[in-house]
Amino acid sequence: MPVPSSQPSQPIADPIADTTIADIGELALIERLKPFCAEGSIGDDAALMATRADHQTVVTTDMLSENVHFSDRTTPPYAVGWRAAAANLSDLAAMGARPLGITVGLGLPKNTRLAWVEALYQGMSDCLKAHGAVIVGGDLCRARQRTVSITAVGEVLSSQAIRRRSAIPGMTVVVTGPHGASRAGLALLLGELTLSPGHEHCDYDSACDSACDSTWIRAHQMPFPRFDAVEALRDLISTTGSTRPDLASSASLASPYPTIAGMDSSDGLANALLQISESAQVGMDIVSADIPLPAGLSEVVGAQTALEWALYGGEDFELVLCLPDAIAQPFIKTKFATAIGQTTDSGIVQLLPEANSKKGLPLTYGSYKHF
Amino acid sequence: MPVPSSQPSQPIADPIADTTIADIGELALIERLKPFCAEGSIGDDAALMATRADHQTVVTTDMLSENVHFSDRTTPPYAVGWRAAAANLSDLAAMGARPLGITVGLGLPKNTRLAWVEALYQGMSDCLKAHGAVIVGGDLCRARQRTVSITAVGEVLSSQAIRRRSAIPGMTVVVTGPHGASRAGLALLLGELTLSPGHEHCDYDSACDSACDSTWIRAHQMPFPRFDAVEALRDLISTTGSTRPDLASSASLASPYPTIAGMDSSDGLANALLQISESAQVGMDIVSADIPLPAGLSEVVGAQTALEWALYGGEDFELVLCLPDAIAQPFIKTKFATAIGQTTDSGIVQLLPEANSKKGLPLTYGSYKHF
Repeated sequence: MPVPSSQPSQPIADPIADTTIADIGELALIERLKPFCAEGSIGDDAALMATRADHQTVVTTDMLSENVHFSDRTTPPYAVGWRAAAANLSDLAAMGARPLGITVGLGLPKNTRLAWVEALYQGMSDCLKAHGAVIVGGDLCRARQRTVSITAVGEVLSSQAIRRRSAIPGMTVVVTGPHGASRAGLALLLGELTLSPGHEHCDYDSACDSACDSTWIRAHQMPFPRFDAVEALRDLISTTGSTRPDLASSASLASPYPTIAGMDSSDGLANALLQISESAQVGMDIVSADIPLPAGLSEVVGAQTALEWALYGGEDFELVLCLPDAIAQPFIKTKFATAIGQTTDSGIVQLLPEANSKKGLPLTYGSYKHF
Repeated sequence: MPVPSSQPSQPIADPIADTTIADIGELALIERLKPFCAEGSIGDDAALMATRADHQTVVTTDMLSENVHFSDRTTPPYAVGWRAAAANLSDLAAMGARPLGITVGLGLPKNTRLAWVEALYQGMSDCLKAHGAVIVGGDLCRARQRTVSITAVGEVLSSQAIRRRSAIPGMTVVVTGPHGASRAGLALLLGELTLSPGHEHCDYDSACDSACDSTWIRAHQMPFPRFDAVEALRDLISTTGSTRPDLASSASLASPYPTIAGMDSSDGLANALLQISESAQVGMDIVSADIPLPAGLSEVVGAQTALEWALYGGEDFELVLCLPDAIAQPFIKTKFATAIGQTTDSGIVQLLPEANSKKGLPLTYGSYKHF
């Protein structure tokens, strides 16, 4: 519901702006949400989704609660929905999967405004649409706190699944984009940071205020799951495979498909590197100077804080992949990824200031705790 | 953790009984929960599940919150877990599907006892085990209220999916078991009802108190999704199909598989009948006297209340199916189902006192509201 920009001082009264879900009741609420869901998907005990032969079903779930994962202060409901959907889709992308659909469990206090719920669904729906996925089902329940629990379902050819455990020493470690932008956006929203004017104005929600003058806020509120990078990698393997016997023996996407290890950086880049290292029992030499940072971040917050946010800020939803070098090099040329280091047989993840540095520091987990 | 029954007056001090999840932290909690999950399923961004060729993926989700769907007063944590898993599996059974696995989203206040969470997982795990399913993933988050959001994934041969919309006039309406037992169990737990001693003692949780002396409480706390009935129906069609050209042209489960419509009765028998009627645009003549009631219920609460509980009590998790009569008759002989009426072209669901009654009353929705 766009606020008319011509008369900002005299907003038109919106008769439904204050309507709560208790006012209209559960059945009417479900009717209002049906248009956001895939046609024909609602109306049975469960949703049916077609999966292709030789594919595995991929499932992931995330639960978000108000004032822990989102708040009216930093995230309008449209962005809560977009981000919740994006976080789940990102997990599918990180598995090398194609998204099919999501289910939405929603816990709501009685006094929740209908407009909040509809904006949430609009955000989820728009994010899904950008990736060919749909809302296939859900459940509503009364709760003391707004709670959004999303489960995303996708499919992947068994040979193309990306696992953490598959990394081996000697692979090139790449990331699909800069890290730290989401944390910078949060800092702007919390008022920890202010920027000079002139940044790109975010256009996704006309209700956003002047603090939105930044691509960083957009990175925080509307992250993009990197199916584009997964697709590009798959295309690359399929086309180079036919001419490079070291990669694959035929142009087909089928076996032998090279092993790719990885995960997304939703809990931070440092976390992703350490998780892959632990899961696959490999070490890593990561070059700090090679970690891509958002343009201008070092200048605004200083190099040390920028690196800190890149490693520990979290919620950038980029992919952290370990690739055979023969794939990594052409993949980097596509601009979908940047090399940040190598897997090793040392067993530990160390951070080297420069590529030719002799001495590094062991990377450690950040200290974010849910409980 | 069984309480030693030999010394009920001197319970052994349990050092972890008061441990909260804040005491041990999120990572340790995850470690404690891993043994309940499918081996190899935890440790990636999403879980992988094999689905068979020609099958569709079936997904359903349910969100439960404390003091709305469960409370310490009526449901020990083991039963909360069992029931939450059973409710989701029942939706899969109602689609004619085979269960694969579930994901668990858990919202927990900091002061939640570790023992509560472990008992919850034990309950889910035991329920799943009984049906060949597993926990494949999940997410933990801090919340003001205990919240359990389960998504169950299954698979079904496309031709065998049971939908609500598939009912046509002239089918036999059957239910897979008595209705009203869960409501009676709740009444016992709430103290609305007391029974004379001598009922079967429930054996699933040594911590349950003397009010558990009833199969009805068991029906409320540990419902069984009716995969057994679905399987029996499928077997029946496969074996009779070969000799009955009106049912199927071969012994194979494949086409032509007869159309079966239906859903589960989780929101009450009346709700299920009305939902199927609306979805398929058929009427129904349902015979009150034919609705199977739990043994002894009418004697304890009176015939009128027993019927009320059967129709509106909810949470019996039986199946309500509309079958071609040629299948319904042998299915009823297997004892997996009881006929309660017929679908009609009248467009309305009416309740007839007896099979030969001339006049019926239109069936209406109960008044249970979530908001």
